[in-house]
Amino acid sequence: MGADRPGEFELIRRFFAPLAKDPGSLGLTDDAAVLTPREGHDLVLTKDVLAADIHFFAEDAPEAIAAKALRVNLSDLAAKGARPRGYLMGLSLPSDWTVDWLERFCNGLAADQAAYDFHLLGGDTVRSGNGLQVSITAIGEVETGSAVRRSGARPGDLLFVTGTIGDAAAGLQARLNPDFCRDHDLTESEEAHILDRYLLPRPRTRLAGAVTDYASAAMDVSDGLFADCAHMASASALDLTIDLDQVPLSQALAHLKIKSPEDFARCLNGGDDYEILMAVPEDVSGNFCRVAHLAGCPVTQIGHARAGEGRMRLEEAGQPVDYDRYAGFSHF
Amino acid sequence: MGADRPGEFELIRRFFAPLAKDPGSLGLTDDAAVLTPREGHDLVLTKDVLAADIHFFAEDAPEAIAAKALRVNLSDLAAKGARPRGYLMGLSLPSDWTVDWLERFCNGLAADQAAYDFHLLGGDTVRSGNGLQVSITAIGEVETGSAVRRSGARPGDLLFVTGTIGDAAAGLQARLNPDFCRDHDLTESEEAHILDRYLLPRPRTRLAGAVTDYASAAMDVSDGLFADCAHMASASALDLTIDLDQVPLSQALAHLKIKSPEDFARCLNGGDDYEILMAVPEDVSGNFCRVAHLAGCPVTQIGHARAGEGRMRLEEAGQPVDYDRYAGFSHF
Repeated sequence: MGADRPGEFELIRRFFAPLAKDPGSLGLTDDAAVLTPREGHDLVLTKDVLAADIHFFAEDAPEAIAAKALRVNLSDLAAKGARPRGYLMGLSLPSDWTVDWLERFCNGLAADQAAYDFHLLGGDTVRSGNGLQVSITAIGEVETGSAVRRSGARPGDLLFVTGTIGDAAAGLQARLNPDFCRDHDLTESEEAHILDRYLLPRPRTRLAGAVTDYASAAMDVSDGLFADCAHMASASALDLTIDLDQVPLSQALAHLKIKSPEDFARCLNGGDDYEILMAVPEDVSGNFCRVAHLAGCPVTQIGHARAGEGRMRLEEAGQPVDYDRYAGFSHF
Repeated sequence: MGADRPGEFELIRRFFAPLAKDPGSLGLTDDAAVLTPREGHDLVLTKDVLAADIHFFAEDAPEAIAAKALRVNLSDLAAKGARPRGYLMGLSLPSDWTVDWLERFCNGLAADQAAYDFHLLGGDTVRSGNGLQVSITAIGEVETGSAVRRSGARPGDLLFVTGTIGDAAAGLQARLNPDFCRDHDLTESEEAHILDRYLLPRPRTRLAGAVTDYASAAMDVSDGLFADCAHMASASALDLTIDLDQVPLSQALAHLKIKSPEDFARCLNGGDDYEILMAVPEDVSGNFCRVAHLAGCPVTQIGHARAGEGRMRLEEAGQPVDYDRYAGFSHF
């Protein structure tokens, strides 16, 4: 370690303890946190590990890396209908970490803690042989028994998704290939949009209540819309059909669809959307849409569930479409 | 990825789902786990990240790496008086991972799940740019309000520690320096003992009940006996004095003390012991020792608490000893 850099206990005192406002964190002065769900509630736990140059670029702003690490987990909680309660963080710092970098990273955590009303409960910091890794275990709360699963879709349900799909994957392509936007004639504002969507997920935490109240199945879209829909179909043991014409697109992706159907197809199932895919019974779907709208979360019907063998099916203009065109992107 | 190696979903199905026996894990088929403490209980959460060539050697047996990753967390739970309930695992696999390695790693997890009666609840697997990292969030249960903290020691309490101290740090020295045992005339069985204590922590889970019933403060010894004792003294805002002559030693460490007082001193505060340090009121200390003995956990009185400024003090034959001789080993 550089002589100018603090040791682990100093790190905790200076950087992490100010983030630990929940009394259960014991101010990070103990080996463990203590947590109890409010009466009549279950805890929902999720864990996502983000690694440099796989899930983000090492040179990204430290505030953005911190936000992404929290938000991919918040997205999982929202998809279960859970409200964020706290998180534990395992932080592996590369050998060349600096105090300035860590200060900015912790500022990013603090900003999202305030925005999403949850707090650091505990964690561990280690040296990493190489790149930065951030391992977050996020904890949310739902009323007892009301966590929404992937497996609850029923024949006749309508399939909804929040926001627009494919933007983050296009943003990643733009990061990997400096000519991507120029080659496809994307405007400056379209480029800014996809880059931002890759850098900063916007977890749909405000939809959690509507998910609990209306959805029979829900999951967040992280691996790719079609890949994730296939998981819901399999878990629910029925067929889910997506009408490609209905998948909501930003102006940037609509533009890309015209300029390069191949790149568009890859991005559409590219993942990193952190939108929510839901199956909603048809008779409550009108109310669901109104409540989602009031919560500031646009939702679009993209398909429906019917009895079947647990498959995801794609259609365009009423005709089956081959899934292979939409090969996803693997984080692993 | 090698063509012969399964993708992430196949990994979950084949390797991890069989470890997820708790219904709250939803069989790892969902984005999150659902957990509720039993009525009248709090959850205790702790997180330790282990990285190759910092906390273990990359060439260690996969079963042993798995066991160590779980056990360092189980040790934290035991020190809070908590009984293990489950864990989430973030696994960063190096680029050259093999199916055989992962099978053995999961066998190690399964063996410890059976030994300590807890289960995998969820997690995430990613490629790591380099070495293996295992990030465990372990969850235990205590009766509401009864988690034992570092901060509860009171003047007059006696200071106890389980097992023997310094063995794992000596084992690490023996791993780093092939001549260590020969240079210090350690016998073969002494060498085997210290190597084993480094490789495989033995968390004092069976002492959890006695910790809850008798200890006013407790923590596990992971950073080094004196460093950790200093944390307890500071958190409890009193002075803790350790009598060096009373610190329990294995035959190997007693031998090392004679052969090389310098190496002995470094190992004594070297950490990785995963024993429990406790402050126990004097009037119940006899009962505490009997209950600990019945639980199969040897405990030794090594000092006492008195009013003071939050410092750890060392004594030998009634005389103060300079702490600097016992500089610890930093994991960070």
